[in-house]
Amino acid sequence: MAGRKAIDQDVEAPASGRARLLEATSVAMREADNLDVPLSDIAAKAGLNAALVRYYFGGKDGLLRALLERDTENNLAELEHLLAMDIRPSKKLRYHLAGLINTYHNYPYLSRLMIKLLQEGTEEERQRIADRFLKPIAAAYEVIVRDGRAIGEFRDVDPKLLYFNVIGMCDHLFSSSVSLKYCYGITVVDDALKRQYIDQVVTIFLKGVLADDA
Amino acid sequence: MAGRKAIDQDVEAPASGRARLLEATSVAMREADNLDVPLSDIAAKAGLNAALVRYYFGGKDGLLRALLERDTENNLAELEHLLAMDIRPSKKLRYHLAGLINTYHNYPYLSRLMIKLLQEGTEEERQRIADRFLKPIAAAYEVIVRDGRAIGEFRDVDPKLLYFNVIGMCDHLFSSSVSLKYCYGITVVDDALKRQYIDQVVTIFLKGVLADDA
Repeated sequence: MAGRKAIDQDVEAPASGRARLLEATSVAMREADNLDVPLSDIAAKAGLNAALVRYYFGGKDGLLRALLERDTENNLAELEHLLAMDIRPSKKLRYHLAGLINTYHNYPYLSRLMIKLLQEGTEEERQRIADRFLKPIAAAYEVIVRDGRAIGEFRDVDPKLLYFNVIGMCDHLFSSSVSLKYCYGITVVDDALKRQYIDQVVTIFLKGVLADDA
Repeated sequence: MAGRKAIDQDVEAPASGRARLLEATSVAMREADNLDVPLSDIAAKAGLNAALVRYYFGGKDGLLRALLERDTENNLAELEHLLAMDIRPSKKLRYHLAGLINTYHNYPYLSRLMIKLLQEGTEEERQRIADRFLKPIAAAYEVIVRDGRAIGEFRDVDPKLLYFNVIGMCDHLFSSSVSLKYCYGITVVDDALKRQYIDQVVTIFLKGVLADDA
């Protein structure tokens, strides 16, 4: 059994065509800092024929929806896990903010991709995107704010507006990285800058910019 | 003279072709919730020939840059005025947040337009956009944070990151209005919702979500 296990670990399964196309799309969007990447570029990057996009995803729309699914999976699972934990609401918010910023750091196009998929396709497709990817987050904010209010930890903030407060603040460093470049001369959000951003976002959400004794 | 004045007030000057094309572009972008609006639609909305875009602006890029100029003019002038006022830094930040949200409420495409113009054109054009429209805001945040720190009113926040904190939070309700629609069933940000958003953004920036005695 030990020998079998060693062999399993040595032989890495090649990524499936599906996974390679998703990763190629993700890399292409990062490199272009844009959602509009040609299928031919994606296929070339994956080393596959562009016709496989139709085979695996039914077309480019399906590819984009599958990418949204891939990129949000961990974040949504973590949020569900957080909600179930026996910790203060402020701590849940803190962990969630850090998780979101890490997600946007990995997939800086993600917020724009979500908005694009809510703007395109049939009404049913848009609503399905919202039900699957937005509403779990919205529901979590309802719970966190309600629990935070109940123990007197939170102010009377509106959880619906908090959704826009949080997503906007966590995302903008990544969706507006051209501002970082042309205004501040910084071309990459490295780990140190990302950690600094997490710290500042957490401080502002929990305590604001005013000093404790101001 | 009284008669002359009355006549002047009665006879409203027709908007110039230039102003009508700018306003038509603005309205078209709002209606489409998208920056990609065809010149033919813009011209039809303005009641003018599309060839006038080249005449007035040199082309579509020039039209978009002129729209950015038009839409940010008041906000940049207000910011300069704010900086010169003899009030606390926290009050300057509060007024600035309200002014920005009002601006995004009027021109919900504005943040996306800024990013688009920083992603397109020559390096010189991009840098000119940043120098003209971003750097005055960045410089104002440096001053407000420095002054707020000096009198012990502010925490040790990074003004560079504060730029992304502020723009992201103020803009997202407007650039992601599809989320408001498909997640919450709200199709228009009316004045009451806008005021509520201003209140919540100001509270979070100044004091955070934690209750004063939490």
